[in-house]
Order: sequence, then C-alpha cells, then structure tokens
Amino acid sequence: MPDFQAWTTRVATRTEQALAALLPAASIAPERLHEAMRYAVLEGGKRVRPLLVHAAGVIAKADPAVLDAAACSVELIHAYSLVHDDMPCMDDDTLRRGKPTVHVQFDEATALLVGDALQTLAFQTLARPGLLPQPGTQVELLHDLAVASGSRGMAGGQAIDLAAVGRQLERTELEFMHIHKTGALIRCAVMMGGRCGEPQALPVLDRLDHFGKRIGLLYQVIDDVLDAESDTATLGKTAGKDAAHDKPTYVSLLGLSDARRLADELLDQALADLADLPRAERLADLARFIARRRF
Amino acid sequence: MPDFQAWTTRVATRTEQALAALLPAASIAPERLHEAMRYAVLEGGKRVRPLLVHAAGVIAKADPAVLDAAACSVELIHAYSLVHDDMPCMDDDTLRRGKPTVHVQFDEATALLVGDALQTLAFQTLARPGLLPQPGTQVELLHDLAVASGSRGMAGGQAIDLAAVGRQLERTELEFMHIHKTGALIRCAVMMGGRCGEPQALPVLDRLDHFGKRIGLLYQVIDDVLDAESDTATLGKTAGKDAAHDKPTYVSLLGLSDARRLADELLDQALADLADLPRAERLADLARFIARRRF
Repeated sequence: MPDFQAWTTRVATRTEQALAALLPAASIAPERLHEAMRYAVLEGGKRVRPLLVHAAGVIAKADPAVLDAAACSVELIHAYSLVHDDMPCMDDDTLRRGKPTVHVQFDEATALLVGDALQTLAFQTLARPGLLPQPGTQVELLHDLAVASGSRGMAGGQAIDLAAVGRQLERTELEFMHIHKTGALIRCAVMMGGRCGEPQALPVLDRLDHFGKRIGLLYQVIDDVLDAESDTATLGKTAGKDAAHDKPTYVSLLGLSDARRLADELLDQALADLADLPRAERLADLARFIARRRF
Repeated sequence: MPDFQAWTTRVATRTEQALAALLPAASIAPERLHEAMRYAVLEGGKRVRPLLVHAAGVIAKADPAVLDAAACSVELIHAYSLVHDDMPCMDDDTLRRGKPTVHVQFDEATALLVGDALQTLAFQTLARPGLLPQPGTQVELLHDLAVASGSRGMAGGQAIDLAAVGRQLERTELEFMHIHKTGALIRCAVMMGGRCGEPQALPVLDRLDHFGKRIGLLYQVIDDVLDAESDTATLGKTAGKDAAHDKPTYVSLLGLSDARRLADELLDQALADLADLPRAERLADLARFIARRRF
C-alpha cells in the first residue's frame, strides 16, 4: 500500500502542523506551562485518532481543514490522558514516546496543569466559532467528544482500570473497561470524521459507529499483544508494564495466540461494517494498518 | 436586602438541584469515581459563579433553565480546579468547604480523575444539543468557557501562582496572576449570563465585561483579606495558608487597610459599570454582597 503510506505521512504531517499552531508558543506566559504542553503533544505519537478522523472524513467528503480541527481536538484529549496516566499517583511511568514523561521532564504540578489545559484546548479547538457551517452539528460534536472523554467514557475507563489492578477479571469485565478507556475516544474519532462533511444517512452513521467500536477493541488487543511481545526501545514506552503491574490484559486472559485470533476476528468484522460504503477504502486500509502495527 | 437574600437562597438551591441531576448517580459504574465527583461538587461552596450567571442573566431576560446549565458548567470548572489544586503536588491541602479534600477522603488517583471528569462534564453540560435556540451563540459560549479555563486563563493562572511561591511579586504581577487564576472564570460567568438571553448591544456586553473583570479582582482581594483575618472554622478551609506557604497576597503586598481600601474602590468601579443598565439591580446587589462577604 504505497499510496496508503504516503497518505498516513501526509495526515500525520498536517496534524503535527495544526497542533503546533494551536498550542500557545513557549514564549507566551505562562512560559513553562506552554513549553510543557508542547513537549507533551508535539513530535510523538502515532496519531491514530487523527488518521481515523481524516479517513472517516473522506466518506463524508469533509473539508480537510475542518477535519484538522476535529482531529486535533481528539488528539489533545488523548494527549492529556497520557500525561495524567503517567503521573506517580496513576501508572507512575517515566518513559513515553521514547522521551521522559512530563512529570519527570518538568514536575508533577506542571504535569497536572498540562493535562488540565490540554483537555481545555481540545474543547476550545472544536468550539472555534464558524468551524462548521452548521453550528448545531458543531454543538453535537462537542457533546459527543465530552461524553466519550468523561466519567462514562475514557476517564471512567481509567477508574475501572485502577480498580482492576491485582484482581482477576472476566473477559466481559476487561472488555467493559477497554470499551471505555480507549474505545470511546477511538469510536468518537470515527464518528466525528463522518459527521464533519456532508450529512450522512443514519444507516451509514450506524455502520461507522459499529466500525468504530470494533476498531477500538482491536486497537487495545493489539496493544496488549505488543506489550507482551516487544521491548521498550521498539515501543517507545515501558514494555511489559501491564504484567509487571499485575494488570489484566487480553494476553493474560486469553493467551497470546487467542488474543491474535481475536484481533483477526475484530478486523474482519470491522471490514464487513464498511462493505459497500462509498469512499471507505481509506478507512478499511487504516483498519488493516492498525491490526498489523508493530509499534 | 431581605429580597436579595431570598434570591441567593433560591439560586443556590436550584443550582444544587441542577448539579445533582447532572452528576451521574453513585450507583452507576464506575461507582467510586461518581461518588467522589458528587462529594467534590455537592453540598458545598458559596456558588458565587452561578449567582453571577443568574444575576447577569436577568439583564438579558434569559430563561432560568438555560442559566442553570450555564451556571453549572462554570461551577463544574471551578470545582474541578479546587480538587486538583488541593492535591499534594499542588497546594497539598486537607480541608475544603469544611470537609476532607477529595484525595484525602478517597485517594490521589481518584482525585486526579474526578478533576478530569468534572472538567469534561462542564463542557458536556454547556454542549447539550438544543440548549440555546441559537446554536451559533452556544458554540461561542463554549469557546469562551474554554478560553477562560485554559492555559491563558484559569489553568495558566495556577501555573503563574506556582512559579510565584517564595518570590516577592510586584503588584502588577500579582494582579496578572489573579486576573487569570480567579478573574477569568468569574468574568466568563458574568458574560455567559448576559449572553444566554436576548441579544445585547455591544456597549452593554462591554460594560458587563468591565464589571466582570473588576468583580474578579474584588473577589480575590476579599479572599486575601479573609484568609489573613479569619480562622479555619469560619472559612471552611485552612486559614492563613497563603502566608504559611509564603504566597504573595494583596494583604502581604499592601497591608490590611490598603487591601480593604482597594476592595472598596473596585466595588465602586464595578457599580459604576452597571449604572443605567436596565434590570441590573440584582447584579449590583451581588457585587455588594461579594465585597461584604465574611466567609
């Protein structure tokens, strides 16, 4: 897929540029906070969520400039969650994207404020007046982003994760956790892309929603497989830490080969969700890419 | 002002009810997170920001149900900031509103997630589809709330505050900090109330903006005076902690009597901002109430 690779590079580049433009310069007061916000967000990450926004946006023939804002808002939520997750009172991790985590590079209080301010910037970005021609749709997207990020979405998933440490989970419990912790925001990214352009019929949105759900789980299963298989240098974050923290994973629950089989099934189902949808090739390629990622 | 007192009680009561309805029940998973979110927000606080939203809303003849949502969104931002400020890596405080702080009552990781999820709930509340008849205005209000809360507003003020501990500040620096740390959100509360109802002429909004700025500073000056004068039982939070932490305050900079004089000046200016504005009596009464508060 040489064309697909060129596309991912293009989207990652324009996302990086859009994020760099959105984040206040490190020369603007409070300088240290802004420097740390840029450190947390720029030059790192696979930008999977922005890729999902843009790939789903192709289906709706969305304006790429609008997709940039939507993509950045989702990525900023993701970035804030990583900064807070890495803090000593949560996962206490020192390495992220191959660099010292924010509280190590700066300090804990700054990391706390960085996460807080990145979340705010996510909503500020999506609430830019005039971003969408239909402000009513923009309000709905803002609402969806909040629901996906909050106590019944991503933040709630973190809480469930915390409560699960050292406890043996059933597969349904593990799934419930991941549907919230990583799934909700990934699903939101897909839906957002699909809603930034021409209005789509409800069945199309339903299929995107199902696709997003499966991709969210697929992403996590692959994450667990990679965490079990890779070394720290390849991952850019501490490898094997879930096992070390006695955290339940798909690998600890199903074993490596069944976890891989589950990933294959989820990919097949996700591709079936897209069957016959016009302009969905990009999103299908991205699903395959996520299933086969090695980092 | 018996009528004013009845009004503040009414607004505080309806705000409490609206917040209780917005916050997920403690019986909904993740239960502990939701229990802690309710603990952080309910049965406490002077609800000054909701009062400002409702009082400014009277000027714009806004629907009280719309003002409830706006008021809750501002109050949830305020509540999240308190939870994070109290954490060990920030102010390390154990008492708030007469109760143990969230990280003491629960744990640090939960406090971190509570703050995160309360911020999200603030935006979710203001992004409720159909809240305002003009979704374009709703998008603008969401944008304003984000700007007031983020790295160039409230969170930025916290960062400036952190950097100032143990350092001698000039009065302009102290003012710069407070304009961000508490001022931005208070100003936002006033503007939000004024924009939730009938469209107001630009000069009216300008005057509300000036009023909001002065009330924000006034609120902080009074806070410093009370912190210097009161005891912990009256305040419901640890008294004298700013001095103990070697934090600059208006009292440490100007002395008690000049700080009181500054508060009087700010009140006079704020009342002048409202002169001749129709239906502004409530907001004027509230300004006087803030200037004379004893807790």
